[in-house]
Amino acid sequence: MIKTKQIGSLIVLSGPSGSGKNTVCDALLAKNHNCWESISCTSRSKRDQEIDGVQYYFLSKEEFEEKIKENEFLEYAIYNGHYYGTPKKAIEEKRKQGIHVILVIEVQGALQIKELVPDAIFIFLMPPSMDILKQRLEGRGTESKEKVLSRFKTAYQEINEISKYNYVVVNDEVENAVSKIESILTAEMCRVDRIEDVDLYTKEEVLHESLMQE
Amino acid sequence: MIKTKQIGSLIVLSGPSGSGKNTVCDALLAKNHNCWESISCTSRSKRDQEIDGVQYYFLSKEEFEEKIKENEFLEYAIYNGHYYGTPKKAIEEKRKQGIHVILVIEVQGALQIKELVPDAIFIFLMPPSMDILKQRLEGRGTESKEKVLSRFKTAYQEINEISKYNYVVVNDEVENAVSKIESILTAEMCRVDRIEDVDLYTKEEVLHESLMQE
Repeated sequence: MIKTKQIGSLIVLSGPSGSGKNTVCDALLAKNHNCWESISCTSRSKRDQEIDGVQYYFLSKEEFEEKIKENEFLEYAIYNGHYYGTPKKAIEEKRKQGIHVILVIEVQGALQIKELVPDAIFIFLMPPSMDILKQRLEGRGTESKEKVLSRFKTAYQEINEISKYNYVVVNDEVENAVSKIESILTAEMCRVDRIEDVDLYTKEEVLHESLMQE
Repeated sequence: MIKTKQIGSLIVLSGPSGSGKNTVCDALLAKNHNCWESISCTSRSKRDQEIDGVQYYFLSKEEFEEKIKENEFLEYAIYNGHYYGTPKKAIEEKRKQGIHVILVIEVQGALQIKELVPDAIFIFLMPPSMDILKQRLEGRGTESKEKVLSRFKTAYQEINEISKYNYVVVNDEVENAVSKIESILTAEMCRVDRIEDVDLYTKEEVLHESLMQE
């Protein structure tokens, strides 16, 4: 009776480094088979433990620039001399199939998406405290003290952008955060602006007509 | 770290007669002890099986008019020569305590609330089909054929108001409808506009300062 848009949502999951974006996304995908994670492209070199098509699609600088020319990116940017970009076509195809696309992305990239996809759902993943954020960044053990400090300072700036998002989810426990994102998805699917048509004029209308004539 | 508004939401649950508003509300309240149903006042006579303070607060016409003078109603209206109104004070008190207030109300009353409480959450409960709506209205067995037909015609008009609501929930199964409303409540609590303050300047800030000085 109610026809709603069958298009999947684009969920932009963003937040400071150390907020747990990737962990939460993986846990969400494991439980929700109608969700799909968009993988970004990069022109930086593949690291040893990385797999092409898992963390990123690894392209040469020339391949990346060719795709820019062909308008294949939703957004792209240069960090530390390397290209990073979000491929457009796969996102559109999945959404058309009714699949929700999750885009795990840094805060600056997220704000670019906002201009381009106004119906995207923006979720800011928040660490429970700056203390815990610091512990998480240090706990990785892969980065220098300077880099941890730099990421920590960036987190302060990024949290200031929170008002540009639709939702904020505190990542105290991965399970809680996933459950909240699932609720957001369910609620968004119930939004009245997803209704394309309220069709009362098919067999129900025939019924109504016949009732009126009784 | 994030201070959100501690005020409870006002959920206006509305929909045509036969959509199952009261059944869904009862099931929601049974599971969610942070929700409370606002009871309306009326000046019509109490029916045999009704209990004062359960279906309605039953007032005399004079008592009702006194409360109008004292500005005690959020909205009120006259149907069939009797007053019906939503008492304001209890709703405000419960919301201040962080309790979500559910207001089960006809479509016309709901649209009045929209003007008065812009931050209320408007949920339109939809029957799965007009066929099922007709069956439900007839199944009550308490009303004349004319009254059923009149309610059925009103339902058509009311469904046209759906775009003024925030959410539409199809009441195919009470359990599904309740679960969707719970998701809507969870999602609404995550909305960025509920954030009053992002407080990074307490003990975490001290920590940050000390880190900067190292």
